[in-house]
Amino acid sequence: MKFPIVTFELPAWVNGIFSGRNTYFLTPEQKMSLVIHLAQQNSQRGGGPFGAAIFDMDTGQLLAPGVNLVVPTACSVAHAEMIAIMVAQKILGTYDLTSAGSGRYELVTSSEPCAQCFGAIPWAGLSRLTCGAPASAAEDIGFDEGPKPHNWVEELENRKIEVVQDVLLDEARAILNDYKANSRTMY
Amino acid sequence: MKFPIVTFELPAWVNGIFSGRNTYFLTPEQKMSLVIHLAQQNSQRGGGPFGAAIFDMDTGQLLAPGVNLVVPTACSVAHAEMIAIMVAQKILGTYDLTSAGSGRYELVTSSEPCAQCFGAIPWAGLSRLTCGAPASAAEDIGFDEGPKPHNWVEELENRKIEVVQDVLLDEARAILNDYKANSRTMY
Repeated sequence: MKFPIVTFELPAWVNGIFSGRNTYFLTPEQKMSLVIHLAQQNSQRGGGPFGAAIFDMDTGQLLAPGVNLVVPTACSVAHAEMIAIMVAQKILGTYDLTSAGSGRYELVTSSEPCAQCFGAIPWAGLSRLTCGAPASAAEDIGFDEGPKPHNWVEELENRKIEVVQDVLLDEARAILNDYKANSRTMY
Repeated sequence: MKFPIVTFELPAWVNGIFSGRNTYFLTPEQKMSLVIHLAQQNSQRGGGPFGAAIFDMDTGQLLAPGVNLVVPTACSVAHAEMIAIMVAQKILGTYDLTSAGSGRYELVTSSEPCAQCFGAIPWAGLSRLTCGAPASAAEDIGFDEGPKPHNWVEELENRKIEVVQDVLLDEARAILNDYKANSRTMY
């Protein structure tokens, strides 16, 4: 019996965004603008309206982007945050981002992480989580964010993971509302 | 800029276990025996002491096994439950297991899922979760199970996912204790 190999590959247009471009993002707003752009571009191409990226906190350099690939990969795990984590760890060759490079990496996401992605954050070795739209904004358009603990911010902070919320909130929320207005797939 | 492709492949010994073998597992104990065997074999080969599998609830046929691949893939996401979910969805070609085959699939895991894998279960389209050792058993040997809601069983049952606990509890716990006794990597 031979079980299939599972693969995740960022779409060519994601690679294209960074070709010949400055990959240093210095402020929270610059980082959030990038992941909102990823969410928007992914949505326009029929994907889920979610983008994420991992940055070196000391230099602001992009390590790995992520977009929601649930539909094209037929995999419920493939949220933008999970893709960014998997690609970042592949680049650095470690399951613990605190052990490589600067050891201080930040996950920036266009929408607050769901229960799965929240649960993945402590294992990944991330030192900061920065969110755009709150979970309620994704829920307002019909996405289920799942059963996170009510004190999820405190749970991360207790594990020395800083949490920053509501960066470019209006722009982040607009991507979700636009997705709904265009009646795209909910899953 | 070209980001790397992430791949997950079950080790050859996992494929080997099922070669020419009956892949129907009819009772909870038969299913749990299989995933405990996967956990034990993975542990003996230097992997994490965790095994999982997804079965068709109507026929008992194995759909996809999973073992913890965190160390060999250098990926914190690669818990046994996540591998089983990703392989199962790859086989059926859908991100929602309720939409394919019998539509009734069960995740059986040698240890209660951590916060990440708990959060992944509702998105996967699973209809039942069956656990061997409780989270406290993994925590007793030094694994962190992460911040799940205190009422996690109720949260799954509210989403029509049945939860069965403590199947072959002593055998499931023994794998964890053996891992600790052999001083293998904690992560």
